[in-house]
Amino acid sequence: MLSSGCSAQASTCAELVRVTRLLVPVQLRWSDLDAYGHVNNVEMFRLLEEARITAFWAHPHESGVAGPVDPEALADPADPAALAAWPTAVLDSGPGASSHTFVARQEIEYLRPLGFDRRPVRVEMWIGHMGGASLDVCYEVHDDGTPSERTGRGSAARPVARAVTTIVLVSAATGSPRRIAPHERAAWEPFLGEPISFRRRGA
Amino acid sequence: MLSSGCSAQASTCAELVRVTRLLVPVQLRWSDLDAYGHVNNVEMFRLLEEARITAFWAHPHESGVAGPVDPEALADPADPAALAAWPTAVLDSGPGASSHTFVARQEIEYLRPLGFDRRPVRVEMWIGHMGGASLDVCYEVHDDGTPSERTGRGSAARPVARAVTTIVLVSAATGSPRRIAPHERAAWEPFLGEPISFRRRGA
Amino acid sequence: MLSSGCSAQASTCAELVRVTRLLVPVQLRWSDLDAYGHVNNVEMFRLLEEARITAFWAHPHESGVAGPVDPEALADPADPAALAAWPTAVLDSGPGASSHTFVARQEIEYLRPLGFDRRPVRVEMWIGHMGGASLDVCYEVHDDGTPSERTGRGSAARPVARAVTTIVLVSAATGSPRRIAPHERAAWEPFLGEPISFRRRGA
Amino acid sequence: MLSSGCSAQASTCAELVRVTRLLVPVQLRWSDLDAYGHVNNVEMFRLLEEARITAFWAHPHESGVAGPVDPEALADPADPAALAAWPTAVLDSGPGASSHTFVARQEIEYLRPLGFDRRPVRVEMWIGHMGGASLDVCYEVHDDGTPSERTGRGSAARPVARAVTTIVLVSAATGSPRRIAPHERAAWEPFLGEPISFRRRGA
Repeated sequence: MLSSGCSAQASTCAELVRVTRLLVPVQLRWSDLDAYGHVNNVEMFRLLEEARITAFWAHPHESGVAGPVDPEALADPADPAALAAWPTAVLDSGPGASSHTFVARQEIEYLRPLGFDRRPVRVEMWIGHMGGASLDVCYEVHDDGTPSERTGRGSAARPVARAVTTIVLVSAATGSPRRIAPHERAAWEPFLGEPISFRRRGA
Repeated sequence: MLSSGCSAQASTCAELVRVTRLLVPVQLRWSDLDAYGHVNNVEMFRLLEEARITAFWAHPHESGVAGPVDPEALADPADPAALAAWPTAVLDSGPGASSHTFVARQEIEYLRPLGFDRRPVRVEMWIGHMGGASLDVCYEVHDDGTPSERTGRGSAARPVARAVTTIVLVSAATGSPRRIAPHERAAWEPFLGEPISFRRRGA
Repeated sequence: MLSSGCSAQASTCAELVRVTRLLVPVQLRWSDLDAYGHVNNVEMFRLLEEARITAFWAHPHESGVAGPVDPEALADPADPAALAAWPTAVLDSGPGASSHTFVARQEIEYLRPLGFDRRPVRVEMWIGHMGGASLDVCYEVHDDGTPSERTGRGSAARPVARAVTTIVLVSAATGSPRRIAPHERAAWEPFLGEPISFRRRGA
Repeated sequence: MLSSGCSAQASTCAELVRVTRLLVPVQLRWSDLDAYGHVNNVEMFRLLEEARITAFWAHPHESGVAGPVDPEALADPADPAALAAWPTAVLDSGPGASSHTFVARQEIEYLRPLGFDRRPVRVEMWIGHMGGASLDVCYEVHDDGTPSERTGRGSAARPVARAVTTIVLVSAATGSPRRIAPHERAAWEPFLGEPISFRRRGA
């Protein structure tokens, strides 16, 4: 139960938020494999997109404002009511919404090949940076088991891939970037964490 | 003409098999939508492919021979052990297996548009015909709720789409069709049912 | 130059229309292959969709009414001006148009596997049936060379696949089927031909 | 630091290599659009993958060793013989080859939305870095016309997107990285250029 914003000193705050990630199961499809028999490098971005939509987009039947999350709902991923219960799912987006999201940048490191598995991968997500109108969504893709909770500590295991997506919020009416709203910022702040340090990035 | 596995008179037999379908939840992806905002007609075949693989392919960690199914396992779809427990998942297929499956024919009728939903669609499947080396997998795609059981009665609701796929079993060694093995036939016979009568098919 | 409608006796007419097909090159993508190393059965429908859009949708910069086709333009597929010159491309469709197309039915027979090739496949298309508000688009997919003309005789070679798609024209305003317009019918009638007789279709 | 292949002083060399890019037309598909009606951010990576395969993979019917390129062949993109004539297409890859390519890292900046167009986009490619066993392929995606040559100067127009992919060559036998072979290095060095400076990359 992390109060949003960090009233303690920064180091403690960073410590706290480091261990709180969104844990999103994403079902593989056999068609994610390419002719090499591994999940294709492009399809990996598809898995990230699906995880991001799951955790950040408000469910169409919701108000678009984060309400209190029912902890019971979180405990049962098979409960349809629980499917809308991501605490960060406050982005009133999708076609027809007042805002759009524009993906401005992406970066990924593939650490090892991923084969087909009937069990979902676990995409761990947090926010590496929150600006005025944009946010950096960070990801680790893990294949060591399906999450039983919506949020929790990050895995210590070596991920399959690490990535970041910079998203800009855009007003559907004007086409211009629009500021992150207070209720969005409040919903997302508990998931602020250290940005990813990519190993391979050139000088 | 359902002779195999039916010692009673045909009408009773047909009645029995009609109510036993495989009920496979398939998660939609936002990327299944096309620029019209509906699940694309091609992607509908992707959903069918994923359902078919889920229910018919033996899990790589299994023996490839149908053993007794643990009813407890069926009750908990979140249990990874249960993921292999489809009673029809006896097809030793996938790359590297001794058999391949060749899709010889497909037919589909789209009855109404399908929008994005976080809840899985339910693909109901049965076998409309079993030949010497081939089988017709029949499908109805439903969006009225996620199945809580692996098998059960078909829905009375109007489906989103109805389809059939003819699959031919092929020996990986020779590239020629190979006969359905006795353990495969035994696993699949309980799901024999009436073939789909397509409305729109021309004369 | 086939006069639309057939005033001669049926056999002659069928003979005439049999030899006039739309010949659409469709570029394969390496990602069309699945883990078996062949073009995936679902992706084959993607190739058909792209061919259909190429040949039937009016180019957004066009009037939506078929004008006389410049034969010189047809001779040079690299000429961007020629890209809009399909004689059947009169369907004012796509998002934002006054009409939508709804795919109501599809059927396909896969005759042999298709591997990756840098050269486009040639999708031969004709119209197997034209109703009041719908049409059946027939396809043969060939891999024996890229077409040098937009229209021409069908190949005598055995195709990779044969298929049909039933398309219903729908008014964007009302959501109801709308009649094929006279200019559409005039543009499409020269490509009327015999429907496909599928071999494998069950009784 | 462009030492290889540059006997003149660095500035002249950089000037030379800056203007020599691979110019690969890539056909859009209508299905590249997402529900927003623009080419989806994930599909953009698909376009890059197809461009990379086109320009770097040896055609299966070739020897895998770069021979002299027939300039006449380059002049006619419709000539199937010309399709193998990319001067950089020396990578003996694909399933069954002695080497595999492993995509280790990707980075992209999306500069403006890309709508559907029947004309191919032009993916301009060059090599930003060549290591012992890896290379950085740089891309700019342009929508201002189809290339008439295989190689040439880069466009001065603002691209749709800019990206880089780090590829590691891997021995199929050992699964370990293997050194870039002399004939590969010779084929690729003419396309060495400045790495992309991404605007948005965080500190």
